[in-house]
Amino acid sequence: MDIAAIDRSALTAAVEAARSDYAAFQDEGLALDITRGKPSAAQLDLSEPLLAALQPGDHVGSGVDVRNYGPPAAGLVELREIFAPLLDIPVDQLVARDNSSLSLMHQCLAMSFFHALPGAAGAWAGQPVKFLAPVPGYDRHFAVADELGVELVPVPLTAEGPDLAVVERRVRADAGIKGMWCVPKYSNPTGVTYSDEVVRRLAAMATAAEDFRLYWDNAYAVHHLTDDHDELLDILGACADAGHPDRAFVFASTSKVTFAGGGVSFFGSSPANVAWYLTRDFVRVIGPDKVNQLRHARFFRDSAGVEAHMRRHAEIIAPKFAAVRAALANDLGALGIANWTDPRGGYFVSLDTVPGTAGRIVELAKAVGVALTPAGATYPHGNDPQDANLRIAPTLPPLAEVERAMKVLTTCVVLATGERVL
Amino acid sequence: MDIAAIDRSALTAAVEAARSDYAAFQDEGLALDITRGKPSAAQLDLSEPLLAALQPGDHVGSGVDVRNYGPPAAGLVELREIFAPLLDIPVDQLVARDNSSLSLMHQCLAMSFFHALPGAAGAWAGQPVKFLAPVPGYDRHFAVADELGVELVPVPLTAEGPDLAVVERRVRADAGIKGMWCVPKYSNPTGVTYSDEVVRRLAAMATAAEDFRLYWDNAYAVHHLTDDHDELLDILGACADAGHPDRAFVFASTSKVTFAGGGVSFFGSSPANVAWYLTRDFVRVIGPDKVNQLRHARFFRDSAGVEAHMRRHAEIIAPKFAAVRAALANDLGALGIANWTDPRGGYFVSLDTVPGTAGRIVELAKAVGVALTPAGATYPHGNDPQDANLRIAPTLPPLAEVERAMKVLTTCVVLATGERVL
Repeated sequence: MDIAAIDRSALTAAVEAARSDYAAFQDEGLALDITRGKPSAAQLDLSEPLLAALQPGDHVGSGVDVRNYGPPAAGLVELREIFAPLLDIPVDQLVARDNSSLSLMHQCLAMSFFHALPGAAGAWAGQPVKFLAPVPGYDRHFAVADELGVELVPVPLTAEGPDLAVVERRVRADAGIKGMWCVPKYSNPTGVTYSDEVVRRLAAMATAAEDFRLYWDNAYAVHHLTDDHDELLDILGACADAGHPDRAFVFASTSKVTFAGGGVSFFGSSPANVAWYLTRDFVRVIGPDKVNQLRHARFFRDSAGVEAHMRRHAEIIAPKFAAVRAALANDLGALGIANWTDPRGGYFVSLDTVPGTAGRIVELAKAVGVALTPAGATYPHGNDPQDANLRIAPTLPPLAEVERAMKVLTTCVVLATGERVL
Repeated sequence: MDIAAIDRSALTAAVEAARSDYAAFQDEGLALDITRGKPSAAQLDLSEPLLAALQPGDHVGSGVDVRNYGPPAAGLVELREIFAPLLDIPVDQLVARDNSSLSLMHQCLAMSFFHALPGAAGAWAGQPVKFLAPVPGYDRHFAVADELGVELVPVPLTAEGPDLAVVERRVRADAGIKGMWCVPKYSNPTGVTYSDEVVRRLAAMATAAEDFRLYWDNAYAVHHLTDDHDELLDILGACADAGHPDRAFVFASTSKVTFAGGGVSFFGSSPANVAWYLTRDFVRVIGPDKVNQLRHARFFRDSAGVEAHMRRHAEIIAPKFAAVRAALANDLGALGIANWTDPRGGYFVSLDTVPGTAGRIVELAKAVGVALTPAGATYPHGNDPQDANLRIAPTLPPLAEVERAMKVLTTCVVLATGERVL
């Protein structure tokens, strides 16, 4: 953004109008929230039949009584077969687990301190460990790293994916960099999908650490907003082709497909990594919740069932994203005081404002009853050095509330920019 | 057991008969398994209505849509209210979680290496950590400790609980002893319930470690075999009374109440420990599977519902325990070559044979198609220094198979004892 190029007189006029709008909001008693990537009730209703997908008498999956302990150790085959093609992971290399992929990432990271990863001489305990963190990124990834004493090294996220010039230099130079957080498709919060070139170079790059891992959080693999959607290159294939078959840990879940917190999750990787994971996991738990896995397999039936289900999600949320886009374009487009992303999937829109304004915008919005994700949340330790990035999460509120919240947001952007620039 | 007192001529006669029986087993092509504590299909059928306990439209619990992320952080209040009185834990201090209490123990232990427990100056990383392990005990507890590099220090389990003379001396002398595994009710495998005196002394004893924790795995809290059942003293109350409110982490689950691997679990402790746990857990996962929690709350309705449900379990499994008791008494009682427990609840019978015979008994039984839990499994690293303890798990097979397997087992006990003693 070229701050010098901002038309001061146009901005001044906009601020005048914004002051009037803001005064009106103060009288409205708004209570709106566009803070978190939660599905709406209408989206959850799409999966309501899941509650009754198993009825008494239906408790056998993968040839076993799913109500009891026991195999298959990697989770129900029926469910893995449905998701394997959607995630570009061979069924044999895909593990089905419980209600949270975040917990799988936490588990892999924590257990790496106790047990050497395939390819490594030893575990991480006692060593300084760092992870690259493309920014803006997902606050919960950063929190997991903090929790386990892993230092986060921010790297810029471009429109093609992480800035590879920075990434390649750092991982080659520093054996303490053991991994990298990635949301490779419809990235949280920018909506970027990594280009094929970026995926291939991440798979191929030389790393000083012998056990470097891409934490490939494919959270939005099937979460398209339009039929004309992004395609992500198969990371496990790219890693194998590049001679680094063990480089990627792939994670996914149905938290934004069926029920948030009541779904199923997946871990996919090389055979050696899967064996490592299952060895670790079998000490922690006798087995996953196969009942819920069977419930999901019955509900979806097949991969096409998942895709059809996701189209129904898109019908509900695409208008909300369109409202965000329209508000930003209409209210801010001519002023040149902000940039934003226009994702073809996922759960977020990323908004970059004039440096030094993001925190103030959140404050102004809060004062009239609109909750925004805290400024800085998309950076490690909540610290956006530019104080310029805001994450918009439009899925949860009804459309009319998204529209209203966006009007408040753009008004606050204009006000804060005026305070800063004029 | 007084080996010198064994009547050699009676044993010789018994071995003669056993040889003949064993030869007959060899022709039978048996395939029986009394190895693990799994519920039988008939027991699982008791919970079959759980599959349909939620139907479309029923998705609100604790005032929230359980299909979405969000509070209550400690899990659904309805479910915690049902289990709080059964576990002797105030609702506010009881956390409801997902399908595995073992995973909660693993989590608490692992996270103690990264974050100081309440009362501690620091986390455990970089220190040698030891846990007391009453023996015979639960192999999966021992495996979790091994996984995380925690050294296991065996202490004898008596008919009243752990041998307190040993426990008190060790925890007072060694600040590296940070905890102790306990299955305080219907212990795995002996069926012992800790006496009130033992509970009080465990709560009150002086420990060199400032952050010593009892890992109180109350796995069989409601798993009575008879109406005349054991009572376990309230450990959290005892700890608070003794001035050590943070000493106990209590764990429980419905794995052997509803579905094994498809149930719900519980963590209960002091307010400070609960806050520590929830802080750790909220980094790992956005929330538990509230859908399954609501399903369980609907199914049980109230605490009395759980108790009634467990009486139906007892009706199914008590005859199997009676068959074990009868076989041991009839076949071995007069010979004085074994001792065994007669539990009033839980999932196991513990059998002590003449030292040096347990491995041989497992081998003989296997050769005729009867799988027994490996000798030594009830000791850290599978090492029973006496080679004398066997764990009998009678719940899974039908009654007729339990009876047949027990006949094989007692025959093998006689044969192995004859080899050793005569």
